[in-house]
Amino acid sequence: MNANKKTDHAEEVKRLLERKNEPALTGLLEELHAADIGRVLGALEEADAIELFKYLSPELASEVLLEVDERLRKTLISHISPEELTLVVDEMETDDAADIISKLTLDEAKQILDGIGEKDAQAVQRLLVYPEDTAGGKMQAELVSIVEGSTVQETIEEIRRKSKDIENITHVFVTDSAGVLTGVVSLNRLILSSPDTRIKDISEAEPVKVTTDLDQEEVAKIFQKFDLVAIPVVDKNGRLVGRITIDDVVDVVEEEIFEDFYKMAGLNVEERVLDGPVRSIWMRLPWLLVNLGTAFLAASVVKAFQGTIEKLIILAVLMPIVAGMGGNAATQTITVGVRGMALGELSMKNAKWVVLKEALVGLANGFITGIAAAGIAYFFGANVMIGLLLFIGMTANLLVAGLSGALIPLALKWLKYDPAISSSIFVTTCTDIGGFFTFLGLAAVFLRMGIL
Amino acid sequence: MNANKKTDHAEEVKRLLERKNEPALTGLLEELHAADIGRVLGALEEADAIELFKYLSPELASEVLLEVDERLRKTLISHISPEELTLVVDEMETDDAADIISKLTLDEAKQILDGIGEKDAQAVQRLLVYPEDTAGGKMQAELVSIVEGSTVQETIEEIRRKSKDIENITHVFVTDSAGVLTGVVSLNRLILSSPDTRIKDISEAEPVKVTTDLDQEEVAKIFQKFDLVAIPVVDKNGRLVGRITIDDVVDVVEEEIFEDFYKMAGLNVEERVLDGPVRSIWMRLPWLLVNLGTAFLAASVVKAFQGTIEKLIILAVLMPIVAGMGGNAATQTITVGVRGMALGELSMKNAKWVVLKEALVGLANGFITGIAAAGIAYFFGANVMIGLLLFIGMTANLLVAGLSGALIPLALKWLKYDPAISSSIFVTTCTDIGGFFTFLGLAAVFLRMGIL
Repeated sequence: MNANKKTDHAEEVKRLLERKNEPALTGLLEELHAADIGRVLGALEEADAIELFKYLSPELASEVLLEVDERLRKTLISHISPEELTLVVDEMETDDAADIISKLTLDEAKQILDGIGEKDAQAVQRLLVYPEDTAGGKMQAELVSIVEGSTVQETIEEIRRKSKDIENITHVFVTDSAGVLTGVVSLNRLILSSPDTRIKDISEAEPVKVTTDLDQEEVAKIFQKFDLVAIPVVDKNGRLVGRITIDDVVDVVEEEIFEDFYKMAGLNVEERVLDGPVRSIWMRLPWLLVNLGTAFLAASVVKAFQGTIEKLIILAVLMPIVAGMGGNAATQTITVGVRGMALGELSMKNAKWVVLKEALVGLANGFITGIAAAGIAYFFGANVMIGLLLFIGMTANLLVAGLSGALIPLALKWLKYDPAISSSIFVTTCTDIGGFFTFLGLAAVFLRMGIL
Repeated sequence: MNANKKTDHAEEVKRLLERKNEPALTGLLEELHAADIGRVLGALEEADAIELFKYLSPELASEVLLEVDERLRKTLISHISPEELTLVVDEMETDDAADIISKLTLDEAKQILDGIGEKDAQAVQRLLVYPEDTAGGKMQAELVSIVEGSTVQETIEEIRRKSKDIENITHVFVTDSAGVLTGVVSLNRLILSSPDTRIKDISEAEPVKVTTDLDQEEVAKIFQKFDLVAIPVVDKNGRLVGRITIDDVVDVVEEEIFEDFYKMAGLNVEERVLDGPVRSIWMRLPWLLVNLGTAFLAASVVKAFQGTIEKLIILAVLMPIVAGMGGNAATQTITVGVRGMALGELSMKNAKWVVLKEALVGLANGFITGIAAAGIAYFFGANVMIGLLLFIGMTANLLVAGLSGALIPLALKWLKYDPAISSSIFVTTCTDIGGFFTFLGLAAVFLRMGIL
């Protein structure tokens, strides 16, 4: 299959659903990958999606559920019987099963756990203990482990036993008799060793591992640092309790970056583009209200200079330019900084340098855009002193933008707050107030001096 | 090794460099992972970094070069001799070697290619043909392939031959005698098969593959869709030419998301937080100048209502609130949309629904924040009609924010432009103009009607 090709099956499915053409539907679904079916479900009306979902085998349904967004997942689950859901969950890997079950009511969860077989149920219950955004929450219980005294041949036999239920076996984890992780062997290494070799002799003795409580963002960084495809997870006593595979890490990396920018924009990290309007309204409202408060704060600066504006109305025309340009320059600074922090390039170590640099960049760009602004204003008939005002105001405010855009996120980080959250709002408040104050304040001085 | 622990070695290295304590330095470097050394280099002064880099063995240097940012890499490379660089490049995988060589002058490149052995040089030269952001640019020539007539035993022998030079072997690629890809076998499958089994009988017959020209963003999506750890790359005739491994994909995923938000903030995608000030100034200036133009456009709306403001100075105080709140609401809408597009949740299919929803969300939040704003203004002594003005202006402008925040990125996407780039600037121009126009325009009407 050449994965370059793209086709859209939603229309076809819709037609077949209308005609209730079961054989054709089943045939089509068998040809598609779970991710494609997930996309089709997302594109259908809710009622159609629910109906289509019922055509899927438990195995396919278990894969498709992992491909749709959280809200649709909830809808689909709520429209099948507990018995059907049990069959679906039974097909899942333990980490995915735990994710689904953790969203159910206690009664529903119990019914599912009773249905999926004792061993799986125990594994899932153990996973339910861990917070979702930790190594424990991301790990799966499915893995191949072997006691260090075993031979290569015995290890291969163990892989054979497990390979029916586990996908993506790339490593075998080695433990002592108490279950404490002592090594890791790649299949590559295993395949090149003679059957009677002792596993201890070919295993990597100090494998990279993480404990269950490590934050998922740190787990992702470790995967990237060591170019791993799987990592063993141990409890606080060093006992092997699970593994995390790289496919789950890609999702974490994606999620964490989007979170940063969501926070910068004053969004709830849970919001999705296909959320209903009522949910979106409520999720966005808090930040808009906070922002309204800071907007009035900035407006109070303007109010203090009402008398100045009264004497020279052109100031009201030009002041939003100074404030707005400051906001834009600050957004540039914050965005570069958030990326730098996420990638570990910006640390407390080089913080001072970055603050000075951003101040300099703001000053320089304020100087240049200030000249341009003065030129444009003059061209449109403003007098030279107004141009000078605009130039000084812009230079000062872009300096404020660079300084606050670098200092505030770093200060938040230093105070152990999330640097992305609320940086934007604090910084644009600074640039609004800075813009109005420098521009109007200077105008007041100029007026008093009689040079305006 | 428990990867949870974090230590900082930059200070120690600095001290040892000052004392020129070579044995201690070499000892310390041997203990560290390449990623850690990369971080130390980033934290050091340039001169110290150059000196430290010379202490590294060619093998370690080749790994460390891949861990530092592009500018530092360039600096380090330019401070070692062509002979040393040849030794370093010789240790690299072909895709990384091609990345390094592509940045050199033609003369330098020739010298390196002559030095690294004919077979590697040929492989690297083949890779140099492909654009960096395509499957061809991301792939490496290192892979294990076998002709379909071979047995499992012969395949294992081939792995043994290759395993000295290749890390992360997880799959063997199967070809016909002409080199056309016909299948893939996982090591897992291989390990469970008897030595005399024909490889054709255990290989997956329709493996997921990509062609060299596919965009790296699409490659990443395919990895995520199929939960792959490696994918074969074929030329337009179906011949196997390379493989892409998941560790390269994680970097692509990260890069692409940051690019979207960089574009939204009007940043050049090449800029990094540790770039020097001059570079940052020039990279940020173009967008600030474009923005200055749109700011004057918005100001011209204010200018048209100069007479209205003259009659009622409080309008100048309140108008930035209306415009600013619109900008914030629009940023929320764009951010949610950019994420939705990146993850494939928002498509042309549900575009109409999303535009209507965003309009509704804007209207509703405009209504609520409008009431709040009117209340605050009244509390601060504004009269009821000013409050009403603020309320109507805010409602109208947040409707503009929702509509333009959804429509403009979607229109850009429909016109095959990048939806992230310049969305922000177009949309905030809309909300600035929308805010000033509705608020001041309505005020003019109220004044003419004699109710203000």
